[in-house]
Amino acid sequence: METIYSEKHKLRDAQTELYGGQLVYPHERPSRAEYVLNRVKDSELGAVTSPEDFGMDPILAVHQPDFVSFLQTVWDEWKAAGMKGEAIPTTWPARRMVQKCPNFIDGKLGYYSLACETSISEGTWEAAYASAQVALTGAKRLNDGAKGVFSLCRPPGHHATTDLYGGFCFLNNAGIAAQETLNNGAKRVAIVDVDFHHGNGSQDMFYQRDDVLFISLHGDPMEAFPHFLGHADEKGEGAGEGFNFNYPLQPGTPFSAWREALADALNKVKEFGAEALIISLGVDTFENDPISFFKLASDDFITYGEDIAKLGLPTHFVMEGGYDVDEIGINTVNVLQGFEGG
Amino acid sequence: METIYSEKHKLRDAQTELYGGQLVYPHERPSRAEYVLNRVKDSELGAVTSPEDFGMDPILAVHQPDFVSFLQTVWDEWKAAGMKGEAIPTTWPARRMVQKCPNFIDGKLGYYSLACETSISEGTWEAAYASAQVALTGAKRLNDGAKGVFSLCRPPGHHATTDLYGGFCFLNNAGIAAQETLNNGAKRVAIVDVDFHHGNGSQDMFYQRDDVLFISLHGDPMEAFPHFLGHADEKGEGAGEGFNFNYPLQPGTPFSAWREALADALNKVKEFGAEALIISLGVDTFENDPISFFKLASDDFITYGEDIAKLGLPTHFVMEGGYDVDEIGINTVNVLQGFEGG
Ligand SMILES: [Zn+2]
Ligand SMILES: [Zn+2]
Repeated sequence: METIYSEKHKLRDAQTELYGGQLVYPHERPSRAEYVLNRVKDSELGAVTSPEDFGMDPILAVHQPDFVSFLQTVWDEWKAAGMKGEAIPTTWPARRMVQKCPNFIDGKLGYYSLACETSISEGTWEAAYASAQVALTGAKRLNDGAKGVFSLCRPPGHHATTDLYGGFCFLNNAGIAAQETLNNGAKRVAIVDVDFHHGNGSQDMFYQRDDVLFISLHGDPMEAFPHFLGHADEKGEGAGEGFNFNYPLQPGTPFSAWREALADALNKVKEFGAEALIISLGVDTFENDPISFFKLASDDFITYGEDIAKLGLPTHFVMEGGYDVDEIGINTVNVLQGFEGG
Repeated sequence: METIYSEKHKLRDAQTELYGGQLVYPHERPSRAEYVLNRVKDSELGAVTSPEDFGMDPILAVHQPDFVSFLQTVWDEWKAAGMKGEAIPTTWPARRMVQKCPNFIDGKLGYYSLACETSISEGTWEAAYASAQVALTGAKRLNDGAKGVFSLCRPPGHHATTDLYGGFCFLNNAGIAAQETLNNGAKRVAIVDVDFHHGNGSQDMFYQRDDVLFISLHGDPMEAFPHFLGHADEKGEGAGEGFNFNYPLQPGTPFSAWREALADALNKVKEFGAEALIISLGVDTFENDPISFFKLASDDFITYGEDIAKLGLPTHFVMEGGYDVDEIGINTVNVLQGFEGG
């Protein structure tokens, strides 16, 4: 399987994450992608190629122009305002407040964010743009006939909505790839999000549409980030009703239960008649992940890669979360090898 | 004029405020109240007395029970979860997300907050409770016939809504006092908020009611905290329509323009037929305030105290903002002396 990868992910190297009331070095850090890349190479998964540049149009196809413009300028505006740290919002439009974007940068940050653990730093936009181009290149490979392709995206994307960043995500790579796959001619695309966290951004992006089925398996939002989306009763609305499914799972969920939920999800993909499948591939379901609470062992990642392969659909794996342990590479490549052997 | 003051404000001594992307020692700190108290004493304004204890009922008359319960338990829950810093939210229910309170403390913080500059620390609840009792004691003095009374509240209150904290505020002291004044027999109470920042909590609390008129003069929310409320077109709704007025003012606003807005506001109080007046007294309108942008000089505070006195209403001054400069005491007492001489 081919891996698409850009060195530019290294431009995203924030020094601060608000965590437990302190500013710590971020869990979402450049070494994550390097672990995965090294494992891809060591295991001879296939070619590693650089992305093409598809420009801004496919990004603007799913994100609001004002939001994208904010991402492009926020760092300069923040520094020009004389701020000393990395860009972090301090207030946001809470219940019963007005959804109108302020002029001052501190207010803009709150308007366009859903979380404040994700500091914006120099180079963040450039890395997010490159990460989206990785996913777009993956979409092209699928269109060109690949059975499977791996977009080694960093920063990740599934928490980013049309107009909100957070959860370490800025542009929704899987969402951008899904739209591109439709534009390339597919009638129906499914996104199955196996990251430990609910893919709130992807859900929100396609919630009123029937051409993208979104399904997420994740830690119950009552217990886990992003906390305010991902409940079982969120089934889509309008034309999108019946095209969104969530499997919120409890702390300590073992692979057996997780795999049952995946089987159910893959059945829904089949019933939907998807012509292409996007897997939002987070491996923070791993038992030793530092910020999650599922109990998947490394071999389980091979097994579920095989399960996904049985659908027989052209499949685009888009990297999401999984934190700084050596096994992030092993587990990611296990899924891909499981898929290839399945 | 009598000043009500509780030593317990010192229990609110958070060590961190998220500011410019860094954790700094908070602008809202114990020395603020000490500056004001010292000036009250030095200028022989009148007696300084301790608050009575009116219990939880008057707090629960305007705040949601689940929110109050959260404030009472958040610190213990945060520490029990093993967090190392002070309690700061990292995610919140942003646009199109679900307004449902999570179980995990990190999610609860986001659910009950509108800002993350306000770290919750040990003793915060006890200080907020005492601050509310100060305001309730002030309300009692007014009911007992005082022409004017000064509640030296700390922490401040006007940003706190029925179910949200932030902006250094936890319980809405002015709102609690307004409701108590109604309960004591007044038919119509006006709150005029002269703090530099919009009193979003007070507005929100009484937005659908016609027995509390709320008027705020403040930095335009497009430019200043709280950013997402305080626009001129917010006039109340339902029964409350026509009982809410905002005067958003631009950076650099001089006293002359500010005073015109105040005159307009005081006219509205008169037309409303208020039987009692509450002044949310923030002195961060001062030209040298470190976080604000109006241009009031110290003498201007005397002048507007005189303007307020001309209404001839029983008036309850409730301390809100004004940051760590020596003049916070001078400017606050200038308003009170202006009122007494006016
Ligand atoms: Zn994740
Ligand atoms: Zn203020």
